[in-house]
Amino acid sequence: MKRKDWLELLRLVGNINRSLDLQDVLRAILEEIREVTASEAGSVFLLDEEKGELQFYTVSGGAESTLQAYRIPLEKGVVGYVARTGEAVILNDPHQDPRFLRDLEKQTGYTTRNLMAIPLIHKGRRIGVAEVLNHREGPYTAEDLEVFRALGEMAAVAIQNARLYADLERLFRESLRALVAAIDARDPYTAGHSERVAQYALWMGEELSLSREEQHQLELAALFHDIGKISIPDAVLLKAGRLSEEEYHLIQSHPERGVEILRHIRQFEPILPAVRHHHERWDGQGYPDGLAGEEIPLFARIIAYVDTYDALTTDRPYRRGFSPERALQILQENAGTQLDPGLLPVFRRVFPRMAGEDDA
Amino acid sequence: MKRKDWLELLRLVGNINRSLDLQDVLRAILEEIREVTASEAGSVFLLDEEKGELQFYTVSGGAESTLQAYRIPLEKGVVGYVARTGEAVILNDPHQDPRFLRDLEKQTGYTTRNLMAIPLIHKGRRIGVAEVLNHREGPYTAEDLEVFRALGEMAAVAIQNARLYADLERLFRESLRALVAAIDARDPYTAGHSERVAQYALWMGEELSLSREEQHQLELAALFHDIGKISIPDAVLLKAGRLSEEEYHLIQSHPERGVEILRHIRQFEPILPAVRHHHERWDGQGYPDGLAGEEIPLFARIIAYVDTYDALTTDRPYRRGFSPERALQILQENAGTQLDPGLLPVFRRVFPRMAGEDDA
Repeated sequence: MKRKDWLELLRLVGNINRSLDLQDVLRAILEEIREVTASEAGSVFLLDEEKGELQFYTVSGGAESTLQAYRIPLEKGVVGYVARTGEAVILNDPHQDPRFLRDLEKQTGYTTRNLMAIPLIHKGRRIGVAEVLNHREGPYTAEDLEVFRALGEMAAVAIQNARLYADLERLFRESLRALVAAIDARDPYTAGHSERVAQYALWMGEELSLSREEQHQLELAALFHDIGKISIPDAVLLKAGRLSEEEYHLIQSHPERGVEILRHIRQFEPILPAVRHHHERWDGQGYPDGLAGEEIPLFARIIAYVDTYDALTTDRPYRRGFSPERALQILQENAGTQLDPGLLPVFRRVFPRMAGEDDA
Repeated sequence: MKRKDWLELLRLVGNINRSLDLQDVLRAILEEIREVTASEAGSVFLLDEEKGELQFYTVSGGAESTLQAYRIPLEKGVVGYVARTGEAVILNDPHQDPRFLRDLEKQTGYTTRNLMAIPLIHKGRRIGVAEVLNHREGPYTAEDLEVFRALGEMAAVAIQNARLYADLERLFRESLRALVAAIDARDPYTAGHSERVAQYALWMGEELSLSREEQHQLELAALFHDIGKISIPDAVLLKAGRLSEEEYHLIQSHPERGVEILRHIRQFEPILPAVRHHHERWDGQGYPDGLAGEEIPLFARIIAYVDTYDALTTDRPYRRGFSPERALQILQENAGTQLDPGLLPVFRRVFPRMAGEDDA
């Protein structure tokens, strides 16, 4: 390779670190390994130690860039061999090698002329295998393998970084859910409420084709919508009888109290309006600010739907929960007064999932 | 460069992505840029847009690997020029260039024969500057600059990834603190308690030279030690008068309730023993399991100190808080019965900071 090519290679490999999202990282690796090794196709296999399987990712050659994922058992094929032994393999005549899986070839209809496979190793641990197929010019050489190995080292690091980030995200999410669930559980009638509302809101967000970032924020806002209730005394929050006017005002202060708890955290700024306004009404008769129509932030209008739905369908001290169908009917009756009528079709589309009628 | 050198370079640059910790990343970059450009010294400058300053990181050549950080104004010197204009610079006779800062050279006593400086750019935004000084063999060439630039691109990505990870960590920590603070605030007498206990425990962990990972876990355990109180009714938790035996048992169940809340989160497994056992006593008379001496997990013994200290120094319904000195005295009297006597010297060393006597 020429100096120019090496410099280009150096640039290319940098791309696999450009994201901390595992899907992006895998996609970049799949592109780079084909490009760098002049191959028609490439695959990455990640080891699932618990299940003794390899999770298989590939992008078919050419313009198609759909990331496909399969699972294959660890004992199978050339890739299984590399995963088990940690040895790199070049096969320039794969059909003569007993490790080569002819079955897979039949399934995919893809003919393999030659291949290279290397273990992906991170801090001494095997985390998977990378494979390239069909060199565009002749057989694979030891030099090709060397470059592939260097790229593989970086790929392993990029994969682990993405996993570390995903682990921290999961920890963050699960911790918040656990704390919010504990807070909800003070009132047996609201146990699980915030978590369900977060899930339902997320479904509506998906249905509305919100961006991933927006979906994430909507979910957080929904998870936290009632967090202000933590500072309302049991005597008021759990009171079975009729509330005095003062007690009623206290309950109604929970959106503002929620904002008070969250507002010191810079990253929560985007969700504060949704927390503050989730009890506004489309007709302007809600609280705390009496906003009406589209003055009410979209996320707050979404949460109003799913919050009301969950309240209707769960038992209360004074009544049994309504059936999902009856709750839907009530929401329909309230679209245009309490609720944004524009969101009703969106809610209806997500409704079967909330009602558990759709297991898809 | 030869093929071997390029491959080596490819491996080297991978190293700057091996960690998501900004300090580690900067240290790796500083090593790589010197090595790759055959320079005596290298520095990285990160742009602080709010302050209009560059934060300056360097590792002096040779074995010394202390990472040093300074701040310099954006308008100064060659580096300031690169940060402002986004242009790379080679100076093989820097003393003839008006942009070169002779003052800095006088300060550091380091003579600059020649230098290269490049902007660090991430997704089109300038995030800083990298600079190398004193080529080991003659002047810097355009080819050197090209390699430096390729490395700089990767360095910018590695820096941003580390920052993204740090941002998420901060968000996680701040969110937990905000929720725990809200929970504490139910009882005006315990407002801020968990956060202070977490801070004090962390200081003791530092004093004990725990690893960073252990410190992190100790801090989390301390932050969550009373989380189980969330499920204890106000009527009991906030009762001003004497507790019935039943109520007392309920209060005493809070460590186990805490574990119940946290145990579903895999990453919290290591902190569960500390949450469960923070009310054990060295003499075996504590709860819930009556563990004694070193049967009690270390983190629980640490938390016992700082939890008791904070309880003593804050006001209660029935008494004013004790002075720090009086609280220390009480802890000393209880070392060997309630508290681990081996930790007393550690607590004493950290005490001035807790008492606010030490602003260092």
